[in-house]
Amino acid sequence: MAKQTPWIAPSILAADFARLGEECEAVLAAGADVIHFDVMDNHYVPNLTIGPMVCQALRKHGITAPIDVHLMVSPVDDLIGMFADAGASMITFHPEASRHVDRSLQLIRDAGCQAGLVLNPATSPDCLDYVLDKLDMILLMSVNPGFGGQKFIPGTLRKIERVRRLIDDSGRDVRLEVDGGVSEKNIGEVAAAGADTFVAGSAIFGKDDYRAVIDAMRAQLA
Amino acid sequence: MAKQTPWIAPSILAADFARLGEECEAVLAAGADVIHFDVMDNHYVPNLTIGPMVCQALRKHGITAPIDVHLMVSPVDDLIGMFADAGASMITFHPEASRHVDRSLQLIRDAGCQAGLVLNPATSPDCLDYVLDKLDMILLMSVNPGFGGQKFIPGTLRKIERVRRLIDDSGRDVRLEVDGGVSEKNIGEVAAAGADTFVAGSAIFGKDDYRAVIDAMRAQLA
Amino acid sequence: MAKQTPWIAPSILAADFARLGEECEAVLAAGADVIHFDVMDNHYVPNLTIGPMVCQALRKHGITAPIDVHLMVSPVDDLIGMFADAGASMITFHPEASRHVDRSLQLIRDAGCQAGLVLNPATSPDCLDYVLDKLDMILLMSVNPGFGGQKFIPGTLRKIERVRRLIDDSGRDVRLEVDGGVSEKNIGEVAAAGADTFVAGSAIFGKDDYRAVIDAMRAQLA
Amino acid sequence: MAKQTPWIAPSILAADFARLGEECEAVLAAGADVIHFDVMDNHYVPNLTIGPMVCQALRKHGITAPIDVHLMVSPVDDLIGMFADAGASMITFHPEASRHVDRSLQLIRDAGCQAGLVLNPATSPDCLDYVLDKLDMILLMSVNPGFGGQKFIPGTLRKIERVRRLIDDSGRDVRLEVDGGVSEKNIGEVAAAGADTFVAGSAIFGKDDYRAVIDAMRAQLA
Amino acid sequence: MAKQTPWIAPSILAADFARLGEECEAVLAAGADVIHFDVMDNHYVPNLTIGPMVCQALRKHGITAPIDVHLMVSPVDDLIGMFADAGASMITFHPEASRHVDRSLQLIRDAGCQAGLVLNPATSPDCLDYVLDKLDMILLMSVNPGFGGQKFIPGTLRKIERVRRLIDDSGRDVRLEVDGGVSEKNIGEVAAAGADTFVAGSAIFGKDDYRAVIDAMRAQLA
Amino acid sequence: MAKQTPWIAPSILAADFARLGEECEAVLAAGADVIHFDVMDNHYVPNLTIGPMVCQALRKHGITAPIDVHLMVSPVDDLIGMFADAGASMITFHPEASRHVDRSLQLIRDAGCQAGLVLNPATSPDCLDYVLDKLDMILLMSVNPGFGGQKFIPGTLRKIERVRRLIDDSGRDVRLEVDGGVSEKNIGEVAAAGADTFVAGSAIFGKDDYRAVIDAMRAQLA
Repeated sequence: MAKQTPWIAPSILAADFARLGEECEAVLAAGADVIHFDVMDNHYVPNLTIGPMVCQALRKHGITAPIDVHLMVSPVDDLIGMFADAGASMITFHPEASRHVDRSLQLIRDAGCQAGLVLNPATSPDCLDYVLDKLDMILLMSVNPGFGGQKFIPGTLRKIERVRRLIDDSGRDVRLEVDGGVSEKNIGEVAAAGADTFVAGSAIFGKDDYRAVIDAMRAQLA
Repeated sequence: MAKQTPWIAPSILAADFARLGEECEAVLAAGADVIHFDVMDNHYVPNLTIGPMVCQALRKHGITAPIDVHLMVSPVDDLIGMFADAGASMITFHPEASRHVDRSLQLIRDAGCQAGLVLNPATSPDCLDYVLDKLDMILLMSVNPGFGGQKFIPGTLRKIERVRRLIDDSGRDVRLEVDGGVSEKNIGEVAAAGADTFVAGSAIFGKDDYRAVIDAMRAQLA
Repeated sequence: MAKQTPWIAPSILAADFARLGEECEAVLAAGADVIHFDVMDNHYVPNLTIGPMVCQALRKHGITAPIDVHLMVSPVDDLIGMFADAGASMITFHPEASRHVDRSLQLIRDAGCQAGLVLNPATSPDCLDYVLDKLDMILLMSVNPGFGGQKFIPGTLRKIERVRRLIDDSGRDVRLEVDGGVSEKNIGEVAAAGADTFVAGSAIFGKDDYRAVIDAMRAQLA
Repeated sequence: MAKQTPWIAPSILAADFARLGEECEAVLAAGADVIHFDVMDNHYVPNLTIGPMVCQALRKHGITAPIDVHLMVSPVDDLIGMFADAGASMITFHPEASRHVDRSLQLIRDAGCQAGLVLNPATSPDCLDYVLDKLDMILLMSVNPGFGGQKFIPGTLRKIERVRRLIDDSGRDVRLEVDGGVSEKNIGEVAAAGADTFVAGSAIFGKDDYRAVIDAMRAQLA
Repeated sequence: MAKQTPWIAPSILAADFARLGEECEAVLAAGADVIHFDVMDNHYVPNLTIGPMVCQALRKHGITAPIDVHLMVSPVDDLIGMFADAGASMITFHPEASRHVDRSLQLIRDAGCQAGLVLNPATSPDCLDYVLDKLDMILLMSVNPGFGGQKFIPGTLRKIERVRRLIDDSGRDVRLEVDGGVSEKNIGEVAAAGADTFVAGSAIFGKDDYRAVIDAMRAQLA
Repeated sequence: MAKQTPWIAPSILAADFARLGEECEAVLAAGADVIHFDVMDNHYVPNLTIGPMVCQALRKHGITAPIDVHLMVSPVDDLIGMFADAGASMITFHPEASRHVDRSLQLIRDAGCQAGLVLNPATSPDCLDYVLDKLDMILLMSVNPGFGGQKFIPGTLRKIERVRRLIDDSGRDVRLEVDGGVSEKNIGEVAAAGADTFVAGSAIFGKDDYRAVIDAMRAQLA
């Protein structure tokens, strides 16, 4: 089991983009711990979502909660700088998306943010072996990034357990986040496998009562 | 002089992304004719802005005015389909960004949108020669796309005049739009050269009173 | 009007790929002058067709007629060498597909083949200005390459006329080929505009009697 | 040892492309189990071979045996769809050639085909760890793809053994195919290491009597 | 005829790279006006030569003559900054190598260098139409860049004349440079067509007496 | 501990590029064993340094010591051929930079050079599993390539130990080289972990007395 306080991280992708500030305020007021910010560039994944200016607008709007930026882009280095300037708290990227993973992680930390790597469903945790000491967060995708409406890939549970051991063996404080098909129905199982940070999109923003959903999710974590 | 009714097209790039719906409503209520929607993918230009989901959110929010989507992306074909589905009214792209310009224009029209090409400051209007009959709009950049805070490049006036003649000689109804450093100070000159659609970003959204600015701009067009 | 003997060039794309040798023999016996060989790489155009080994197989099969290879690929230089080795007679490519057009043309000629450029529907003949003396053939696309079942784009006629004048003014022997939507119904018009080489795919291979179609097409050229 | 019935899979690359239908009929009549269809795009490997239209022509010609499509292309997703439409039975690709391996495998299965991954000589089987449950076939290259006339790389035997154990441990029915330099001389050894599907190109098509070769190969498998 | 003082610009490509400082000193002492510095990146052209650190070493070595950097690279923007820092005097690039030609030219000037464009043999001067006021130099390639030992392409003379008129009509001070196969045998003809800056590689560095060659070239310019 | 004679390999990157021949002579006279030649193409890493012509110039200048070429480029195959022709003794490249690692290694050996792979700080030695028998050298980066002035990444020691065991277990003669932040202060520790070849740039060329530094480094290896 993870030692970090569990975090509920609503994915902004499922929010109403016409009134993002309000949406973020509402979800935070309802108990969310962090805003999960999904960036797609139509190259690393086949969609294009939102960039640094939107992140900055949330900060100007008064959002002070952590903003957890997941870069589904390639290359990553220039956007790392832009998002750090725009107020990102954590920045995670896919190791396949950067030629120089160690350097990109260092760029994130030099910019004052927490750094993380994201593993696609087919990606092995072996890629973490020589960078674990530069990671504040590991994000495991339980669906393929860039598409909506997918179901949680069951094999992810085994990967969560393996990465949990990796983190525990290292003795370091690294968050283990899971993104894709997480809801109040399976969050307990995902947490039991070792995750401590839970991204949920339509499972939260698709409901009328954000607090009710977040409370229900958190109840499964007790 | 252009025969089309002049259009003021506020660029969404300068709006508050935390409350985009409200901003679009306000600027349209203040007299804007169309929302200019700037899409950047961090490949064709070195920034990433907003994609189809944001466009769709504006439609769901109730914006019914034309949305004029300027694609600063490469390649363009997949995003054309996504923006058409998301409610775009016009879609314009850069000829250098598509291997098959004629086909991309046809894709836009087949999807029920108006189609246009955008010319960078250094791009010659020669590229319009064999596609003029598939164009509803020509957008001339008077600054380099992908960056803020640039001044209107004076040589653009000569290019506006040349494209104006091209359109008039064709006898077709094609809008001639100009984007970059346009404000109430030079809009008269830009219109005199032949433009009929005027993009303005911070010149409008950077002011407190949107109506005052738009009225001032329109006064120069009388 | 063109001074070259008119050529009918059946596009192999519409032939039966399970018995290509036989198909080529049949169409040549029916009066075709040259085999038009369409190469797509799924990068320059969104399809992948046939490569040098298929060209070589036709030569080994006994086809001695000219094979006119149209490269819808990017980059082009390596495939130029492979097709020359495989028995190509002419090799044409798109100027947008090579960074060094003059050098690629020279590669074709150094390999003992005839060299040509292909112009997409939106491409202006201006790109021919400084390479005309290295061209044996100019191919004008009257549809967008990479897709089947398209109609002849009417604006092509004006481009044929312009390139015809360009060739005549140069005093050089350059074939002017047209590809896309050509059939016995419009071949007369296309020839009248100045073309001398006519690609036809399903218009020929889609019919039972190849000789009847080719005769009908040639009758329009008299 | 493998539990699947051994399959001899003649590679179409070594067949006569001028009469492919006949060649496939002959080799199947001579005892081959499946047609191995090699697709190269001149980007993932430095050659370009044959695409979906050729596959479809074989189906129209009456070939009903399984067609085992090996994609030596990048990216893979669009061609997966085209080959499924064209009648492919299995589709395999290289994990380095797709950004989203899990999704590409899912695309193949959703299209009704069997899915597989191909490992280059230098590629470690570690990449199979998190996708084994989406695989119907694993293809190990025993030469470098994209070139002819290479010898079987001896180290492949060790990799076959390792992947055999991986498959057996999973308890799943996954074919283990080997491609490159396989002939009647070494097929016994390759089978003993754990392979059950054997690609052979010139070793079969280069001979006059297809049946004699295939029988000789199969004799080594008894 | 050009109004600028003619410049002889030895190309460093033909110098001895083991003692570049000495070579530059020698050729300048022998009367050269400027060092022509050829940068290739193995992407825009198929060779890789020398980068900013070599330019900087020449400055540290005491070379104070203008260094005329010809970028045969793509993209260009990052290298522009590096070469400006390294002491370049002029920086020229190919318009096909930058998505945003106007911006790249502006970057060069903002960095305090003179800016220029280079035209490949097949490239039309039409691309100069809307950037002439940002140019200090136009370089016409009279061979294909990236290769040695080529002959002067005769058609270049006609292009020199056309660009000469373009410059004269503009009333601006823009150098017109020619590179490729220029020697004392044809420099007179090249100058008569309108060039004022003459790149020569092996024609100078390949000889024992640099002064003798440069004097001979200059004699043809009188 | 390694069994190979330790080698000091000064990186040419820190030498004076205006008099490279002299610099190489001096450092070899001072006891260096091999010249480490850093090639960057501004694509695999964000800098461009020196290419094959510079390597060839050193050979013509009389340098007979081994030249150890580290390719920080992508793709690698064409430059492998050029560097072999230019007199390289060893050629190493990054596995991420070649689609076909086994083939690229074979190209190097077929050209008569020693072959090696380079591992970035984040790259796992797992990628060596199926190519160890084609390697003469393994280079571990102890900083991120493409940048100067970085410190030795401590985690590298653990990776050196692991690769040392890999080599020893294989029973083959493979050099284990380390590059980045190595100086007389830590060379002993690096050697103790298992390295036998030590790249040093400014640690050597930045000093006045090359012999003194090299002697001091070698003293730590005794």
